[in-house]
Amino acid sequence: MLHGTAASEGIGIGKVMLIEEHSLEYTPRTVTDTEAESQRFKTAVDAFCYNTEKQAENLRSSAGEKEAEILAGHIQIIRDPYLSGEIEKLIADGQCAESALEHMCDMFIAMFSAADDELTKQRAADVRDIKSGVLGILLGVNEIKVSDAPKGTVLVARELTPSVTAGIVKENIAGIITETGGTTSHSAILARALEIPAVLSVEGVASSLKNGDTVVVDGSEGAVIVNPDDNTVAEYSKKRDAFLAERKELENYRGRETKSASGEVYELFCNIGKPEDAVKAVDADGEGVGLFRTEFLFMDRTSIPTEDEQYEAYKKAALILKGKSLIIRTLDIGGDKDIPYLGLKKEENPFMGFRAIRYCLKNRELFKSQIKAILRASAFGDIKIMFPLITTMDELREGKKLVAECKADLRNMGINFNENIQVGVMVETASAAVIADMLAKEADFFSIGTNDLTGYTMACDRGNNDVSYLSYSPLQPSVLRMIKRTIECGVQNGISVGMCGEAAANKLMIPLLISFGLTEFSVSAPSVLNVRKIISTWTKEEADKVTAKVLEMSTQQEIVEYLKSVV
Amino acid sequence: MLHGTAASEGIGIGKVMLIEEHSLEYTPRTVTDTEAESQRFKTAVDAFCYNTEKQAENLRSSAGEKEAEILAGHIQIIRDPYLSGEIEKLIADGQCAESALEHMCDMFIAMFSAADDELTKQRAADVRDIKSGVLGILLGVNEIKVSDAPKGTVLVARELTPSVTAGIVKENIAGIITETGGTTSHSAILARALEIPAVLSVEGVASSLKNGDTVVVDGSEGAVIVNPDDNTVAEYSKKRDAFLAERKELENYRGRETKSASGEVYELFCNIGKPEDAVKAVDADGEGVGLFRTEFLFMDRTSIPTEDEQYEAYKKAALILKGKSLIIRTLDIGGDKDIPYLGLKKEENPFMGFRAIRYCLKNRELFKSQIKAILRASAFGDIKIMFPLITTMDELREGKKLVAECKADLRNMGINFNENIQVGVMVETASAAVIADMLAKEADFFSIGTNDLTGYTMACDRGNNDVSYLSYSPLQPSVLRMIKRTIECGVQNGISVGMCGEAAANKLMIPLLISFGLTEFSVSAPSVLNVRKIISTWTKEEADKVTAKVLEMSTQQEIVEYLKSVV
Repeated sequence: MLHGTAASEGIGIGKVMLIEEHSLEYTPRTVTDTEAESQRFKTAVDAFCYNTEKQAENLRSSAGEKEAEILAGHIQIIRDPYLSGEIEKLIADGQCAESALEHMCDMFIAMFSAADDELTKQRAADVRDIKSGVLGILLGVNEIKVSDAPKGTVLVARELTPSVTAGIVKENIAGIITETGGTTSHSAILARALEIPAVLSVEGVASSLKNGDTVVVDGSEGAVIVNPDDNTVAEYSKKRDAFLAERKELENYRGRETKSASGEVYELFCNIGKPEDAVKAVDADGEGVGLFRTEFLFMDRTSIPTEDEQYEAYKKAALILKGKSLIIRTLDIGGDKDIPYLGLKKEENPFMGFRAIRYCLKNRELFKSQIKAILRASAFGDIKIMFPLITTMDELREGKKLVAECKADLRNMGINFNENIQVGVMVETASAAVIADMLAKEADFFSIGTNDLTGYTMACDRGNNDVSYLSYSPLQPSVLRMIKRTIECGVQNGISVGMCGEAAANKLMIPLLISFGLTEFSVSAPSVLNVRKIISTWTKEEADKVTAKVLEMSTQQEIVEYLKSVV
Repeated sequence: MLHGTAASEGIGIGKVMLIEEHSLEYTPRTVTDTEAESQRFKTAVDAFCYNTEKQAENLRSSAGEKEAEILAGHIQIIRDPYLSGEIEKLIADGQCAESALEHMCDMFIAMFSAADDELTKQRAADVRDIKSGVLGILLGVNEIKVSDAPKGTVLVARELTPSVTAGIVKENIAGIITETGGTTSHSAILARALEIPAVLSVEGVASSLKNGDTVVVDGSEGAVIVNPDDNTVAEYSKKRDAFLAERKELENYRGRETKSASGEVYELFCNIGKPEDAVKAVDADGEGVGLFRTEFLFMDRTSIPTEDEQYEAYKKAALILKGKSLIIRTLDIGGDKDIPYLGLKKEENPFMGFRAIRYCLKNRELFKSQIKAILRASAFGDIKIMFPLITTMDELREGKKLVAECKADLRNMGINFNENIQVGVMVETASAAVIADMLAKEADFFSIGTNDLTGYTMACDRGNNDVSYLSYSPLQPSVLRMIKRTIECGVQNGISVGMCGEAAANKLMIPLLISFGLTEFSVSAPSVLNVRKIISTWTKEEADKVTAKVLEMSTQQEIVEYLKSVV
């Protein structure tokens, strides 16, 4: 059995098809007719763009818009005037098209690879893919026809390039195994979009498997079994069928209310990070957006986004949601994010530093432009404002005062907005949970951020492997009490209380949240139907019984073991 | 009015005596009779050591043992075989004693100054002092006679060297002003030991004042008033008299029980960082030690201290305390401390990282050797063990299990220890406060660490100036509730609950702590008598009334303003 990263859920059983990198070797030549060579290069680029465009179209229908865009991006890169201009110059100097292309691409690859962030590194893979594509055309090497793969094929490659994956016929590919890539790589995103089980980062797999080998790909556990015996095949076939049956059964929950077995109705929202993601929320049958992170607007740029830019983004999401709830969280950044133009200092303990609402209240112009953008967008949907990292009443009051000031400004300018827009608190610090009774009197709603609430309560940085055992779940007695208290204070004051952390989709947590009185669950789009199903299996009474027992327990281990025995 | 660091409390009014640095210039010579030059150097060093020894003796009686040791340390440094050996070598090569001395001292100064930590930097000041001292002798320059200063003198210097301060006749020096140095510098420590008002780090003061100028030194506020008018002198004289009267009045509380006006009796302990500090606790009339930090044993060395070394240190403190309580906190370090041999990693958020009990439970050999050392020392006094940074029941249980294992080992070896040694929990995380009811059932006592409890509850790093406004005091509604809850859970379970943070000595906090039911206050030695006095002014009933009002308030500002109006 080989192990790797579980990148796309499900079980696949099939025969190996090795995606070998075809030889793109050539002997560099000096050209004298540089005009003709330049023409040869341009023709190859045109052919490449044509192929890529077709592949992107395929992908658009099989996997989705975002995946197709990745591929379409290749056209933009090779058409970039700087890149193609420099290649043309080298050709004009007498280099052959192949070496001119390779020289410039390698430069870009080296540059991108040296970057610190994953996104830029990903660009290196794109350029590598482009180089192979154009070189292949120049050298007349045939593309691998993944599209010809027979039913029951497991694709095995060192790295799955977008151009290769674009050829995938979903019905024929049982699984994907690669040597590189993590859960956020293109291969992983694509595999999940196509619902093909995938295990990535399996060391040396391309050289240890042969074409025709039978393999089991367990994309849920991150395991690969090579040439399994009959019993193993039977066992995994059963698992696969169960997985597929469950996936299909979940479709029964589409379009239904989110309701417990005893009839309590809940709101079931999605968390999104970009306006376009609102489409996914709607497609996944989410009933709204419980957390719209606005950091994306501030990342990967060199200046603060204008009020208008922000307004357009918020409005776009609101329009996609067509009147469904949209909770927009104001800027949640700090010294651990590299956004040079905000002037944030490197801090000794950034999680306990100058961030989120603390930063915004001291940078009022920036904060007010975000609030105004949200207010203006509120004319186009059911938008709510949420403040992150609240620790004191003062912060909520100051934030609400700024909202009132922004409203007055807009009113004076005759600009439309929702006069009754709700302003809520993200409860994610121990302090906020402890004074939740006070906050609930002045906030319009709560949303519990379980990851941070767990981290702060346990005094533990989740990102630190040496201590993450303390905070990998909120099923710690102390954290559960914090959550219970927050929900009860909200309910007693008649405001809605949501949860927008991972925990809201955790089947062990759901009965507890039902019992505590949570009114809104905000989860990732792929979890929507499953959460609706889990909620439907609990009556309030059963949930209360389970919860009463949990509240008597003094360790996480005890709680987890008990919950596993009853859910 | 000039401003600086308030380094030693009190008001001094007097006439300036400038401690000018005398010229130590000379023309380097080449010597031929190197034997004679070497003898000249040795004679100067002997004279320097003789002077220093005498000064240290003076200091021992006027200021205390620790201050004298600083000065006596100079002898060790100049007698260091490496330093003096290298100087001798330079002389043997034909350099004159002055330049040989200067060359080597400057090297050491540069080396020490480059260090990261304050302690090592302080060594640079020591070497500078030694250099001046020996050079002065070699050049026949007279020492400044601070000892001849008349009554009512205010010493003003760029930097006050230990050798100069050693000459101070306490009765004659009304105040100290320097251009450099913070509250932990030698000058500050000495000024406090001598009870002389001092303002340090006053920019350019040595050049802006003249001999004979009249100045007011306000060591409580960190202010210096130059050539004050009669009204100002009268005003500050009144303040000074009030300060001295209060200091004198506090002496009335020496030797008395710590008791509220309604008769409740409290334990009043001290916080210490080294075994020797136990002397200060006793001298200050502390009734025991509520927090003995053990980090000092692990700092400034290259390997883990042995069990025996630790045992000697704990035993020393126990013997000084003669049966009074001694609560020893087990190792409380993390990735923010530079202790290379412990192999701690640099962390993104060290306050929320692998530290204190978390580190100890994963480094059992180290932990058990500390526990055994404490157990062995428990045969010599009333020692208790306290675990820092507890967040879960598991941690307390695992810690207690290790104590039981260590006891069994010692029992098998026939070594004496207190079989009934108490094991307590430092309550300083939000989690511990929230599950205080559970912890109280298995811990023998609690001690609340207010600084960290405030920081974790407020998700705020006190060391970060941008956010320290959130956690400079525990008078936040959420933090007060955490403290209240912890104390009540302890009291309900019949265990003692102490507080060992700064807050225990804060006059605004004391009525609240009395009302919540705190049983033990652990403060810095100089605060003991004042805390005893403050406690004596409150009846439980009045404290309850004030506290009831505070608990209704929703902001720190409201609470502070109200408390200031009633205390």
